[in-house]
Amino acid sequence: MGHNSFGSAFTVTTFGESHGEGLGVIIDGIESGFKVDLGALQDEMKRRRPGGNPLGTERNEQDELVILSGMYEGLTTGTPLAMVLYNTNHRSYDYSNLEHVFRPGHADWTFYKKFGVRDIRGGGRSSGRETSARVAAGAVAKQILACKGITIFGGTVQVGHVIATKRDWERCDNALTCPDSEAALRMAALIEEVRSEKDSIGGIIECRIQGLPAGLGEPVFGKLQALLSHAVMSIGAIKGIQFGDGFACATMRGSAFNDQRTAEGFLSNHSGGILGGISSGQEVILQAAVKPTASIGQGQKTVDKQNMTTDLLIEGRHDPCICPRAVVVVEAMVAITVLDLWYTAFGRQR
Amino acid sequence: MGHNSFGSAFTVTTFGESHGEGLGVIIDGIESGFKVDLGALQDEMKRRRPGGNPLGTERNEQDELVILSGMYEGLTTGTPLAMVLYNTNHRSYDYSNLEHVFRPGHADWTFYKKFGVRDIRGGGRSSGRETSARVAAGAVAKQILACKGITIFGGTVQVGHVIATKRDWERCDNALTCPDSEAALRMAALIEEVRSEKDSIGGIIECRIQGLPAGLGEPVFGKLQALLSHAVMSIGAIKGIQFGDGFACATMRGSAFNDQRTAEGFLSNHSGGILGGISSGQEVILQAAVKPTASIGQGQKTVDKQNMTTDLLIEGRHDPCICPRAVVVVEAMVAITVLDLWYTAFGRQR
Amino acid sequence: MGHNSFGSAFTVTTFGESHGEGLGVIIDGIESGFKVDLGALQDEMKRRRPGGNPLGTERNEQDELVILSGMYEGLTTGTPLAMVLYNTNHRSYDYSNLEHVFRPGHADWTFYKKFGVRDIRGGGRSSGRETSARVAAGAVAKQILACKGITIFGGTVQVGHVIATKRDWERCDNALTCPDSEAALRMAALIEEVRSEKDSIGGIIECRIQGLPAGLGEPVFGKLQALLSHAVMSIGAIKGIQFGDGFACATMRGSAFNDQRTAEGFLSNHSGGILGGISSGQEVILQAAVKPTASIGQGQKTVDKQNMTTDLLIEGRHDPCICPRAVVVVEAMVAITVLDLWYTAFGRQR
Amino acid sequence: MGHNSFGSAFTVTTFGESHGEGLGVIIDGIESGFKVDLGALQDEMKRRRPGGNPLGTERNEQDELVILSGMYEGLTTGTPLAMVLYNTNHRSYDYSNLEHVFRPGHADWTFYKKFGVRDIRGGGRSSGRETSARVAAGAVAKQILACKGITIFGGTVQVGHVIATKRDWERCDNALTCPDSEAALRMAALIEEVRSEKDSIGGIIECRIQGLPAGLGEPVFGKLQALLSHAVMSIGAIKGIQFGDGFACATMRGSAFNDQRTAEGFLSNHSGGILGGISSGQEVILQAAVKPTASIGQGQKTVDKQNMTTDLLIEGRHDPCICPRAVVVVEAMVAITVLDLWYTAFGRQR
Repeated sequence: MGHNSFGSAFTVTTFGESHGEGLGVIIDGIESGFKVDLGALQDEMKRRRPGGNPLGTERNEQDELVILSGMYEGLTTGTPLAMVLYNTNHRSYDYSNLEHVFRPGHADWTFYKKFGVRDIRGGGRSSGRETSARVAAGAVAKQILACKGITIFGGTVQVGHVIATKRDWERCDNALTCPDSEAALRMAALIEEVRSEKDSIGGIIECRIQGLPAGLGEPVFGKLQALLSHAVMSIGAIKGIQFGDGFACATMRGSAFNDQRTAEGFLSNHSGGILGGISSGQEVILQAAVKPTASIGQGQKTVDKQNMTTDLLIEGRHDPCICPRAVVVVEAMVAITVLDLWYTAFGRQR
Repeated sequence: MGHNSFGSAFTVTTFGESHGEGLGVIIDGIESGFKVDLGALQDEMKRRRPGGNPLGTERNEQDELVILSGMYEGLTTGTPLAMVLYNTNHRSYDYSNLEHVFRPGHADWTFYKKFGVRDIRGGGRSSGRETSARVAAGAVAKQILACKGITIFGGTVQVGHVIATKRDWERCDNALTCPDSEAALRMAALIEEVRSEKDSIGGIIECRIQGLPAGLGEPVFGKLQALLSHAVMSIGAIKGIQFGDGFACATMRGSAFNDQRTAEGFLSNHSGGILGGISSGQEVILQAAVKPTASIGQGQKTVDKQNMTTDLLIEGRHDPCICPRAVVVVEAMVAITVLDLWYTAFGRQR
Repeated sequence: MGHNSFGSAFTVTTFGESHGEGLGVIIDGIESGFKVDLGALQDEMKRRRPGGNPLGTERNEQDELVILSGMYEGLTTGTPLAMVLYNTNHRSYDYSNLEHVFRPGHADWTFYKKFGVRDIRGGGRSSGRETSARVAAGAVAKQILACKGITIFGGTVQVGHVIATKRDWERCDNALTCPDSEAALRMAALIEEVRSEKDSIGGIIECRIQGLPAGLGEPVFGKLQALLSHAVMSIGAIKGIQFGDGFACATMRGSAFNDQRTAEGFLSNHSGGILGGISSGQEVILQAAVKPTASIGQGQKTVDKQNMTTDLLIEGRHDPCICPRAVVVVEAMVAITVLDLWYTAFGRQR
Repeated sequence: MGHNSFGSAFTVTTFGESHGEGLGVIIDGIESGFKVDLGALQDEMKRRRPGGNPLGTERNEQDELVILSGMYEGLTTGTPLAMVLYNTNHRSYDYSNLEHVFRPGHADWTFYKKFGVRDIRGGGRSSGRETSARVAAGAVAKQILACKGITIFGGTVQVGHVIATKRDWERCDNALTCPDSEAALRMAALIEEVRSEKDSIGGIIECRIQGLPAGLGEPVFGKLQALLSHAVMSIGAIKGIQFGDGFACATMRGSAFNDQRTAEGFLSNHSGGILGGISSGQEVILQAAVKPTASIGQGQKTVDKQNMTTDLLIEGRHDPCICPRAVVVVEAMVAITVLDLWYTAFGRQR
């Protein structure tokens, strides 16, 4: 009920605060005998890591995963896979200046209202660092899905008013994982401009699932898009999600939107690969709206615990745009959801 | 795991096919001693009922709720509240022409791929009629929430390119529950035009939660926006959801998006009433993208069970735009989610 | 959280009061394309039905199942299977004499303390009649399990001090389903003696699972014996459960209790077919202690709503021993649990 | 679905193997602002620790809890409380002799059948050491319950044929926490005798809940005795559970078993404090049957991976009777269950 777990068959539970002793994840329900590629897992961690992206913060966090249980001689045993990230330098920070005020755009105010107490160090449980645990679990899920022929990947397709018009996924090895290399340059320039103004900016991330067979997803409350929305919207910075043509469908006619089919297959994919909540065998396509980073270097109005108006200036180095590092988090949540549905349908103990 | 239940504390389970013996809903976890206003409940059912809206289908379905359990002398007992809608005339339909073909835009193809068998009568379990059970549960949730000072309401704010620019919620008693009465007229005209062309059209529904205290929602996977997204995206016709400024945040700066606060309260509500997944005490605002109705009166390509290309012409009367009737479904799913979170936080047995 | 559902993969939700409009069960997660034998299902219902057993109450209840959803042309569709038992003559009873007093041994007092209100008609939700919904679900589970080679059966092995010493399961077609036909005669005589004294008596039911392959059950909180205990102990009249040698193990040495194994198989089955919470491939054997029926024809002390001491004499015809009718309920809960674990391990959508 | 979590409101997830890197527990759903007494917590750990009891094994394990998250300045924050026990000397063991054989009475055979692979070090996930994580969570639950006036305690009441006839709970500070100090001496003597014979012996543990108000437990599948049975029967060594008079009710008449009530209160407590699955306000009393320790120093028959019959002699020091150390585990599972039901009823965020 504290909702720190996600998934009913492949169940991911995360714990830990930004600057406490450590963060981690427990994966319950994983199949046994699976050989986890620890190198690939660590590579995924790097994609999210602060300091790992030229467009991101210059802060450098170590995301070295320690596996506490669930593996024996390199194979999963089918028991809970526990992975921890220790916060090696967590005691060196000084957050006392944030103890009595609530940062705009952050969860400070609402945590205080809900819990009465809060861990003020770096956002505590509401920190973006919590998503590192998800990336670890997602990396494992991706590896298992890959063995089933299912691939999950994504990229930044919009920053501010710069929109990617191409989907050249073979050539998206830029800092934004943007499938339009020309747009990627302009996005990068915009992000540096915003950084110099001590401001931040939003964007849109697109994620795709390839190789998903028809038949995954459950008809009513477990619709594929519903579970994916739950998963992706649980990432702090995301303010919206859409599938296929998404919000553009508001202006479309049924005669244009319906994906007709012939013996050769579907003639279009406006629905984004899902019909009636169940995968159609087409590529699943979703987009997530990313809000501008809450931490900015400009002065802002806020209140303190006594509800007195205060001017706040947040120190420190923050990402002007979270998209570059959030792509892998979106992919992770998508992968966890898809594997959960797979196990739901076919079991883990085949 | 069949995912026909939603909610962990106030748990709603629906069952039933469009043209089987009946549909229904079981509410588990409801508080005892609550006096349900059965008249108000039936009024909510009418808002969704085919034939109940001038802009909708001319088909007329009776949505007469029968309460099988959970009430005694007008009060809830705290045991499961079971409500059933019998399909009184379900045997009179002839769906044999749809037995071997898959309607574009519908779940026919994916159900067949998933289950191997399907109830072909009126869409079976994937029919929009399934949402009547949700409306019943939502109506009960709304009544309980009203006693706690929480109000949930919504309306159509876009149909095709017609966009409501006003939010005059006091005067939205038009067929679209649109808070801009002038736009409502143009929306209605557009819908009739689409109907005459045997086509359909999409739109956008907005829903608001007023009176929600700060502190509801759980920090990680149970973020208020995540659970609401799960709930609303589980409605068949919805292709996207956004909170506050939603997708528009992609083009915004943090300095503009952050909701600053003074002793008098928040200075803006770009976030849509949620910070860090927890209600901030502001009004919660969300929008859902509604796809054009899948059933249209124009010829379409599809395949049959032998995967032979076929031309399909769907007979019958269908809604040219599902927005008018879907508003109450969105409200219902929002209400169920909010009450579930309330019980999670405070219990049902106070 | 109202806990009217059981099982995570094959999920059974029951609803309904003893003398309300009806009782029923929703099965969510059932596989599609399964042909339910409705005749066999109705036969199982008869085993529990009051009036269906010579040793039971003379009251006669009709347990005619109506299927509302989840089947099409005789096959399960994979959507929720809803089955209802209508209480056709529920309005003819007069329970007003029980409105203000709490029957000893019943849930009257605790329901009132918990909920503040209660449905006084025939025990409401706490009535043994609630178990008819479980028997319906269990009958379906048994049929599915039979196709997997798994058989579940049970019988009365003790009533008062009369103990069955044989396990002649081929010849247990007596009113007690007792596998010792000679003991069955003495049990029946004892029950009639108790009835003539307006009293009731307890007993022990044994249940067995044959054909269960090794490997079902989950190592920690989902141990096979833990889930079966949850299931069986949720039947109102059961006060204890044991597996294999059960409580007798308190006086045993490990050298006698351990089930050693050779190439030919296990040399004994003291553990009751479960090791480390996982089925060993041996027969699973469990016993459940059944308390004497709470409703007796003798005067008893109780209190009313004002906590005034009262003498209560309960009218009506009640089972002097509930064992004969409870056997099928135990079997049903065991079957539901085993199928749930099967789906957990192997999925429902093979 | 891997069932390594227990509880729906106060949710406990355990992970870790006997001789892996570490074991631990995540508590999700805990209230915020609670001051955990870490000293008292560590004292509970000692009650279970090998080497901590004169009647137990001479092996000495360190159960030093490290808190990774969920606390800030000594108070719970309401986010997941993660506690880990590192296995500091886990690399020094040599279990290679157990790699190819299956120990009788252990989960070796069934784990291998289920998972195909297993962590052979000290039983891996099926080791009794897993319960240390439960004791940690139970200790926290007990502290929270104590603030609500609810006390949970237990003791050994039978070892072999030695039965405690007294319930002198004020004087049970013996190695068995036995409430009959004279019987405790005979139990201890019997255990030493069994140890000298390289054998083991079973027993019975009794556990009581005092101060539980009437109204906890849910009427159907969430009956107090059902959830407690699930909890306690998930402890590896337990083969049976009973409430109140338990199995003795098989020989009782209803006139003797029913707990009658007058204005002064209940006249007896045969039911063990539960009526209709809901606490009655009386003391809850349950007993659990403990099997003889599986590891004994005598030669036993077993098979290896090639199913060849083998003679096995297990080296090492093991508990001749697990009762002394299992008492605190039973208490822990009871405490977790009761607090989960409390939060279910009243919420965690009061």
